[in-house]
Amino acid sequence: MPPSQPRSPTRRTDAERNRDKILNVARTAFADPAAEVSMAEISRRAGVGMATLYRNFPGRRELLEALYTEEVDAICAAARAPGASLSSWLHQLFAFFASKQHIAAELLKHTGSGDPVFGGGRARVVAAGQPLLAAAQRARETRDDVTIDQVLDLIHAVATIEGDASYVAPILRTALDGLRVGGQQGDFTWPRE
Amino acid sequence: MPPSQPRSPTRRTDAERNRDKILNVARTAFADPAAEVSMAEISRRAGVGMATLYRNFPGRRELLEALYTEEVDAICAAARAPGASLSSWLHQLFAFFASKQHIAAELLKHTGSGDPVFGGGRARVVAAGQPLLAAAQRARETRDDVTIDQVLDLIHAVATIEGDASYVAPILRTALDGLRVGGQQGDFTWPRE
Repeated sequence: MPPSQPRSPTRRTDAERNRDKILNVARTAFADPAAEVSMAEISRRAGVGMATLYRNFPGRRELLEALYTEEVDAICAAARAPGASLSSWLHQLFAFFASKQHIAAELLKHTGSGDPVFGGGRARVVAAGQPLLAAAQRARETRDDVTIDQVLDLIHAVATIEGDASYVAPILRTALDGLRVGGQQGDFTWPRE
Repeated sequence: MPPSQPRSPTRRTDAERNRDKILNVARTAFADPAAEVSMAEISRRAGVGMATLYRNFPGRRELLEALYTEEVDAICAAARAPGASLSSWLHQLFAFFASKQHIAAELLKHTGSGDPVFGGGRARVVAAGQPLLAAAQRARETRDDVTIDQVLDLIHAVATIEGDASYVAPILRTALDGLRVGGQQGDFTWPRE
């Protein structure tokens, strides 16, 4: 096989750089839903022309989908990183849920809940988290009466609680402690349904 | 002081009976939001005339508010019942949150979130639950880094998770186990923010 064209893995083409610039600007802009930043404003802040912006993202919906997909990619990559543990990943997942709420909400306005981007994102996060949960359950660190779907729903529910970080942090801690095997044991019995 | 008119405490006047009949019918009717039961249908099912219905509840909003208040009354009374414990009360609270969602959602449509019935209901539940949490924390059964507001928000968040009872029950158990003091201890340390 001939050697491939010499190219650093970190070297990016102009097209890739433009796409990244647009996404970085859009991520910041959409973090504040009250700002209602227009496509023209995103083009201006990213320093790319409208033609370049629309060539990459034909509309606001495509931009939102790309941001959403990028965040799902990141959370899946975190689950597969060397040394990843369920406990550290669930903290990242919480931050992911909390941060993507605005993007998900605006995407919903454009597409409705039937958007395959949503369902596909969930399925990918489930697939990425499942081995971490299984490993923690095998190690008897995590209770074995919950599935990855139930764990995701619990963390997501906590992420929807309103309040600043200092208010929500003990609630998240409570949920995470409940997932520990120790949380199921002890001499004090809670009534079960 | 002259003795009061002899009257059993369980004897109800016609007016009270009519009000109860209407509320019982409305509670069932509103449990299924898809049914969209009209005031005329409630009058028919309760076996009272429209004049009686409207004398008790001038509109749908007043009926919804009465149902909501009645459920708040019940959950507050449960907290103050002899032998009440935080653990058993939180199970009741979960059922309360799960069951009042339709009523609360429809009431929101009529009044907006500024409705004093909502804020007042929350304040009353907080006041009723606070002594139970304090007692459980004094007994070192429940972790002491959460307030009654945080406990309510956690249980409410779990109650919003979609799924049948067998799906949600282990999630509720996880949250309740996390509230136990045992849930905070053990040799396995979760990362803290």
